Amino acid sequence: MSTTQTSKIEIIKAATTKINEVDFENLSFGSVFTDHLFECDFKNGEWQKPVIKPYAPFLLDPSTRVFHYGQAIFEGMKAYKDEDDAIWLFRPDENYKRFNKSAVRMAMQEVPEDIFMSGLKELLQLDEAWIKRGKGNSMYIRPFMIATGTGVIANPSDDYKFMIILSPVSAYYAGEVKVLIAEHYSRAANGGIGAAKAAGNYAAQFYPTSLANKQGFQQVIWTDDATHTKLEEAGTMNVFFRINDTLFTAPVSERILDGVTRKTLLELAKSEGINVDVRPVLVSELVEASKNGSLKEIFGAGTAAVVSPISGFSYQDVYYELPKNENSMALQLKDKLTNIQNKLAEDTFGWTVKV
Amino acid sequence: MSTTQTSKIEIIKAATTKINEVDFENLSFGSVFTDHLFECDFKNGEWQKPVIKPYAPFLLDPSTRVFHYGQAIFEGMKAYKDEDDAIWLFRPDENYKRFNKSAVRMAMQEVPEDIFMSGLKELLQLDEAWIKRGKGNSMYIRPFMIATGTGVIANPSDDYKFMIILSPVSAYYAGEVKVLIAEHYSRAANGGIGAAKAAGNYAAQFYPTSLANKQGFQQVIWTDDATHTKLEEAGTMNVFFRINDTLFTAPVSERILDGVTRKTLLELAKSEGINVDVRPVLVSELVEASKNGSLKEIFGAGTAAVVSPISGFSYQDVYYELPKNENSMALQLKDKLTNIQNKLAEDTFGWTVKV
Ligand SMILES: Cc1ncc(COP(=O)(O)O)c(C=O)c1O
Ligand SMILES: Cc1ncc(COP(=O)(O)O)c(C=O)c1O
Repeated sequence: MSTTQTSKIEIIKAATTKINEVDFENLSFGSVFTDHLFECDFKNGEWQKPVIKPYAPFLLDPSTRVFHYGQAIFEGMKAYKDEDDAIWLFRPDENYKRFNKSAVRMAMQEVPEDIFMSGLKELLQLDEAWIKRGKGNSMYIRPFMIATGTGVIANPSDDYKFMIILSPVSAYYAGEVKVLIAEHYSRAANGGIGAAKAAGNYAAQFYPTSLANKQGFQQVIWTDDATHTKLEEAGTMNVFFRINDTLFTAPVSERILDGVTRKTLLELAKSEGINVDVRPVLVSELVEASKNGSLKEIFGAGTAAVVSPISGFSYQDVYYELPKNENSMALQLKDKLTNIQNKLAEDTFGWTVKV
Repeated sequence: MSTTQTSKIEIIKAATTKINEVDFENLSFGSVFTDHLFECDFKNGEWQKPVIKPYAPFLLDPSTRVFHYGQAIFEGMKAYKDEDDAIWLFRPDENYKRFNKSAVRMAMQEVPEDIFMSGLKELLQLDEAWIKRGKGNSMYIRPFMIATGTGVIANPSDDYKFMIILSPVSAYYAGEVKVLIAEHYSRAANGGIGAAKAAGNYAAQFYPTSLANKQGFQQVIWTDDATHTKLEEAGTMNVFFRINDTLFTAPVSERILDGVTRKTLLELAKSEGINVDVRPVLVSELVEASKNGSLKEIFGAGTAAVVSPISGFSYQDVYYELPKNENSMALQLKDKLTNIQNKLAEDTFGWTVKV
């Protein structure tokens, strides 16, 4: 390991690389990590010196707050390599802002922009060999923060650890996705933490999702917890519904994550001349539209899967199959989006940011 | 460190004890831990050999699931020493059952009873010098479990770590407790995880609680998230309301933790001839009762604080002060309960279990 100093980040390089052990043709999502990670601790009331160092386990006391009271947030973003080997981020400012929004809701420290952004960029540059060119290929970026204070008392931690880890991914094919519409379980409360990318939101969904899995559904579409009549979002995706030629999606709220892909698709759809309507969508409307043949498509939208077409939904024990479409809006929008992200089409929106 | 083997638990003793560094007269809740901890890992589809070893930090990979998706649950229970230095647990079966109920809801492995109970007892025996006699003194026991599988994909972990750590505590005096009744924020969704002792439930409350703290209130009493009309529970306590001479408390539900102290106080109250009424209590009733003078007491009930009298509540920016009572039911019940727990009164209920 060699220690050097660039601007304010201390860089400790790994002695060897693991890159040759990785089969880039067969990446399983989120399971392979690059040689280095970025780390910055909040301690004694201030952010400490940021460091990039070899990816490795770290020590935590058994009474560390994150284990007991769940202060933990994360982001999910991607970097892409163009034909000239330049590295690009997609709307990183959106993830940065959302990260700190999550931090506030979870009573955690906000991370200064400079630490977040320069950490991210330095790390991507150091591990740039791990980013592969070509459509569908990208580097999945996982910034996250955990409470590192100790003591089993239910109060916000004084100390935090902010980290960024990198995981190379290739085009994500989820297989056929059938969804179950939630009738009893829910993901978020009014006045709760549904709009934060908080770790606890995900664990809360695992059990009801596993029940859906057992019935043959890959995902759950959550509904509002009070009435279960309004369609909200899926596990890690916002959801779009195409009825005739209009795209509908729920407005974001304190129960729904403000997805970057969702907001991007809304803008892309408008620029493609597609009618979009952002308003609460009722389960009853969906059932009705399916019955009368006006429901053409449902798809999920999120950083990991990009756009994920859904083949049918189940509600009150009835399965509603979606038609096969020649002109799928999901695929049209996915194509536009991934071309911009992978720098295969011009980015007239100014979404891509060079590292 | 010496390694010995008792029954099935491997015991690795600490070379030295930290007990002489501890000021038992000035214990801050949950901040001091004993010399040893109990640990049992779930790996490769089965529970591994349990071990008691020196309390120490442990290594985790940065992609460990608990950091990213929040699978983490815990319990809070206490052990007491009687005048003959025998160690007693209070209704440990209730905590054990609730722990596994939480595990199921969070899609985690259930811990076998033998591992939980014999781990607990062996650990208490080994660190018995840390348990002090006398009313108010006890050993706070924190069993917890975290997801230790790696990989940033939002699925339940395959691996888990179950641990028990011990923290000596003395009588807990919270100071004056004024509470704010939640009008916007909430703790739990219908169909959510409110009834589980899941780490994420606590982090979710920190921000709204900090807003209440800034207004001069120590705690928030949560209301149902859909209408904010029904009184539910506080941060780590169930809540009782005394109107005239009847004690009211909300029924447990999927939004409310089924507290051991709550259920114990209900039984104790009945045996004391106190009228109890378990039904949803409306905020409007509370305000009305305060106005007409029939509201005599509010108190929280939980393992940490035992019984915590509340001096007043705020709702819609009006502060309602509670009367000072000569015959406080809170103190009457607290006294009965702590006498049983500390083995200073006969336990006719069979709640106390010798270690
Ligand atoms: C709950 C939830 N909804 C929606 C999304 C989609 O957001 P984005 O498009 O920013 O990735 C995500 C994930 O990333 C998510 O976790
Ligand atoms: C949310 C919540 N409610 C109530 C309680 C009280 O439960 P018990 O009496 O079992 O400690 C606790 C804590 O322990 C809690 O965390």
